[in-house]
Amino acid sequence: MGTSEFRRELGQQFRVDSVRMSSAAGSGHPTSAMSAADLMAVLVDGYLRYDFSEPKSVANDRLIFSKGHASVLLYSIYRAAGVISEEEMLQYRTFASPLEGHPTPLLPWVDVATGSLGQGLPFGVGMALAAKKLEQLDTRVWVLCGDSELAEGSIWEALEHASHFELDNLVAVFDVNRLGQRGETMVGWDLDRDVRRAEAFGWNAIAIDGHDVEAIDEAYAAALSTKGQPTVVIARTLKGKGVKAVENKNGFHGKPLEDPEAAIAELGGERDLHVDVATPTATPSARAPRTKLELPRYELGDEVATRKAYGDALAALGAARPDVVALDGEVSNSTYAEEFAKAFPERYFEMYIAEQQMVASAVGLQAVGWRPFASTFAAFLSRAYDFVRMAAISRATFSLSGSHAGVSIGEDGPSQMALEDIASLRAIHGSTVLHPCDANQTARLVAALADTGGISYIRTLRPATPVLYGPDEEFEIGGSRVLRSSDDDEVAIVGAGITVHEALAAADALGEEGIAARVIDLYSIKPLDAETLRAAAEATRGRIVTVEDHWPEGGLGDAVLGALAEADEPLRVVKLAVRDMPKSGKPAELLAAAGLDAEHIAAAARQLMTETASTT
Amino acid sequence: MGTSEFRRELGQQFRVDSVRMSSAAGSGHPTSAMSAADLMAVLVDGYLRYDFSEPKSVANDRLIFSKGHASVLLYSIYRAAGVISEEEMLQYRTFASPLEGHPTPLLPWVDVATGSLGQGLPFGVGMALAAKKLEQLDTRVWVLCGDSELAEGSIWEALEHASHFELDNLVAVFDVNRLGQRGETMVGWDLDRDVRRAEAFGWNAIAIDGHDVEAIDEAYAAALSTKGQPTVVIARTLKGKGVKAVENKNGFHGKPLEDPEAAIAELGGERDLHVDVATPTATPSARAPRTKLELPRYELGDEVATRKAYGDALAALGAARPDVVALDGEVSNSTYAEEFAKAFPERYFEMYIAEQQMVASAVGLQAVGWRPFASTFAAFLSRAYDFVRMAAISRATFSLSGSHAGVSIGEDGPSQMALEDIASLRAIHGSTVLHPCDANQTARLVAALADTGGISYIRTLRPATPVLYGPDEEFEIGGSRVLRSSDDDEVAIVGAGITVHEALAAADALGEEGIAARVIDLYSIKPLDAETLRAAAEATRGRIVTVEDHWPEGGLGDAVLGALAEADEPLRVVKLAVRDMPKSGKPAELLAAAGLDAEHIAAAARQLMTETASTT
Repeated sequence: MGTSEFRRELGQQFRVDSVRMSSAAGSGHPTSAMSAADLMAVLVDGYLRYDFSEPKSVANDRLIFSKGHASVLLYSIYRAAGVISEEEMLQYRTFASPLEGHPTPLLPWVDVATGSLGQGLPFGVGMALAAKKLEQLDTRVWVLCGDSELAEGSIWEALEHASHFELDNLVAVFDVNRLGQRGETMVGWDLDRDVRRAEAFGWNAIAIDGHDVEAIDEAYAAALSTKGQPTVVIARTLKGKGVKAVENKNGFHGKPLEDPEAAIAELGGERDLHVDVATPTATPSARAPRTKLELPRYELGDEVATRKAYGDALAALGAARPDVVALDGEVSNSTYAEEFAKAFPERYFEMYIAEQQMVASAVGLQAVGWRPFASTFAAFLSRAYDFVRMAAISRATFSLSGSHAGVSIGEDGPSQMALEDIASLRAIHGSTVLHPCDANQTARLVAALADTGGISYIRTLRPATPVLYGPDEEFEIGGSRVLRSSDDDEVAIVGAGITVHEALAAADALGEEGIAARVIDLYSIKPLDAETLRAAAEATRGRIVTVEDHWPEGGLGDAVLGALAEADEPLRVVKLAVRDMPKSGKPAELLAAAGLDAEHIAAAARQLMTETASTT
Repeated sequence: MGTSEFRRELGQQFRVDSVRMSSAAGSGHPTSAMSAADLMAVLVDGYLRYDFSEPKSVANDRLIFSKGHASVLLYSIYRAAGVISEEEMLQYRTFASPLEGHPTPLLPWVDVATGSLGQGLPFGVGMALAAKKLEQLDTRVWVLCGDSELAEGSIWEALEHASHFELDNLVAVFDVNRLGQRGETMVGWDLDRDVRRAEAFGWNAIAIDGHDVEAIDEAYAAALSTKGQPTVVIARTLKGKGVKAVENKNGFHGKPLEDPEAAIAELGGERDLHVDVATPTATPSARAPRTKLELPRYELGDEVATRKAYGDALAALGAARPDVVALDGEVSNSTYAEEFAKAFPERYFEMYIAEQQMVASAVGLQAVGWRPFASTFAAFLSRAYDFVRMAAISRATFSLSGSHAGVSIGEDGPSQMALEDIASLRAIHGSTVLHPCDANQTARLVAALADTGGISYIRTLRPATPVLYGPDEEFEIGGSRVLRSSDDDEVAIVGAGITVHEALAAADALGEEGIAARVIDLYSIKPLDAETLRAAAEATRGRIVTVEDHWPEGGLGDAVLGALAEADEPLRVVKLAVRDMPKSGKPAELLAAAGLDAEHIAAAARQLMTETASTT
């Protein structure tokens, strides 16, 4: 069988297997797989270099299905490559099988989970950055995109960044089958429009018939010989190609074929072709060894913004760990990621004002062995929330730093104030959420994060705050600090970040009135130190004031309540939080207006004493 | 003074006032205002039609500062137009002033809050859609964008949608001053690249010198005469234009000028020009009157998916209320927004797979008097989280419907499962979060939402669930339903959505063992019925099992704990929630694996009885 004939047959096998899998499962997206079958047949037979026995090797090319719903096509490739059996293939979407509805790293050959459209190409940018800028390897990143997902702005962020970074090791394949879930896309088969758009974004764009295996081969070859810019192969295809009942027809998205037997017959029957995927030729270089971490040290009583400590600690981490890379969303002089950028420009990636691409780059970088720290204003991490959500499904490990948290930022106003970040990032599977109050604590926690798996978040402050802890004090993730306590504590105040300082002042004021108040710095909001909170509840007969520069929902207060859900004493927890929309003003004015300053904390504690005096 | 001379002088006045305001405040972005001053001078003198005394009139043109940090320029316009005094102007960024750091609707002439970049143009698309498609008015929407924000994918979503909808009433002005916060943008002054990109996206693009008032005038005139496509004026400008100390220099972003007196002198001193903004000529037509709402009715015991009831109810609402509009992210056959689309195609907007633009369109539409309902898979609302966050600052009113919530979707796997939506959307200021469990309840709640201010969210289910409530039963926002109760209740089970059905089965099983379990359908998660929860805690000596198809953080369980933060009895609350990353499988398998099915709920209740038997 000649090369082209083999590839055509392989494409048909992919189609047949896609039909079989989705029919066995009773769900899936066979028609979305059938449009791209020839594109993938040529790729895996002729271009991809991948050692299935060493999926984590950075010597491999990478293949990402940005159109994750075409998972049956990916699994068809795995079957043809001999890494899953026919039997395993037919367990698609069942509870016991790693062949999920959309690809996830439950399969060792899947680096990143897809299924939320418009994310695979941005992830690919991160991987291509690693290969080109960090590893200097000639590996390639191949990304299969659907045409519906071109409506996602994140695709255009990826196009712009890939062009900016001259990622000629990145090849996108647009499977333009014209039909989305419920009808035609905005662009349809206007391939010229997509070519113009891609070229305007600085890409080499090649429009082809996506069912012509020779044309596909030529396009891929042209991609490989294009230097200085990424290439996109824009392929006109037919959704459901090869089965007349569904081919190029609306109304068959995400459905198994009604008559799979007839469809398989029409496609030429079942096949058992094996594809020899080439093994990689790249030779990764060994990474420099780690050295001892020398964290920055701040003097007790000095005033230092925790965001500055973040930047200093990140730079220190960069010196000790050659695997640490940093990214920022064009605000590195605010988040202080610039400290790292100045020290290690080769491991710093400026992501401009494109938070989705920033987080996606972090996902891509960590997938190939790097340890990313990405930063922007905490409020703007909300722009990438779907990417963070999907990163958890990718089982990704990276850290996010969000600066300018809460009303304490002052004059810039509510658009720049993160007030929902703790809630949203606590609700990410396996996440770690930290909110330090001083510079030494921040530095220690940045170091701890570097050894923490999963997605972690450190929330930093704009204003300078007094250094409360000595530089040799150690802080664990999951810990807390009791800053004031006595055997006579009648109320406990729990804060984090800016509110720790207010809580201390409140406790001092209460102390002068003869009310002993315990103060807990709950710098680790997830995981949290339930034991210390329970002890405080016990000591104070349940009287706790939580205080957070955040909305009342899902933040520190709710986390504390979660720790006390099974309590031996009646609870008297008062949550102080931002309850009205804040505005521009001075930080102190805004903390007072939100009821978060020392005066309001003390008043809340006093009222709690009064209210509970009669009942306890 | 001739027209051009006046406009040049007006531009200088805007610069001077920008310098004055930011110097008075000690913060702000004067250099970002100075680059766009001439562009705005020509606009307000020659093109904008706006009645400042009737800011809500749809007869007005709209002006949006997508680069919200240039707020001083906007306020300079207001001063020149005579709607704020010099004294008011100089209160910029102070606590008592509505002149916030970034524009918000605290000022009556600001329709939408900006300050998170890349949002103003998408909002403008929504407003332009209203004018062109709904009102058939010849009003225009003008949007001033910065060049840094062109890195945001949402800008390209807006460009694509504006072109798709042929919004020739939309004019974008790109202020290409080359310099971002910390350095040059990716594109710099390569105006040709921006022209090619905009043209490739179907826009009429005009590149000019942004300080040449005649060229600006010609460009705006050309924009007005362009039919069938939107126009973008791409203006090469100098950041800090007019003051040599900062002009076209890096390092002066977001800072008052060091020597404002010298800068003002260099700009020709203070001026007191008045600009006569033209009044609008459009005549809005009266909207059809509302008619009686006839909600769909479902039979008790039938199996109906709540997402289907959403679609049916939305169509019913569309019949009764001519102000209701619907949008969907290319999944209307899954969310059932298609029921509305079929009935009222002229009030339905297909947003394709662009969730940011979908929410932004809703924000824009509501700003000009429409009542939007926007839907997609609940998981994908996370894509637009920053837009929802900003919409709250815009004081916007619209509803979001998220379908396919939780593991109960089954085979499609975790990428399609919303498990963080309750947490993230509870943490939106003033939001309403509903999660109905049956079709009649859904329909009633959709109707209630239409009369609810702020941002509201209704979470619907993929699988069909039994109809539990009769079609005449009424449901209030903030209410709940006690589905099982007796004087002997020993434990309460609180669920919503799919878990209500599991909770009922669990209660039945427990009842057979002699354990009386109260079952609460907490369909309104925010606001929530604290009274009913407190009564349940009292009746059961604090024994409560919460059960939610959501991560443990920030969802229904935390909301319940929040209501019980001040309790008269020790709490024994057990939160059942999704704790491990789910996978593909059958809905029942996944509910069981997550510990959310009737069996696990009953087991949790039994264990609670055992654990608390000795202590109470």
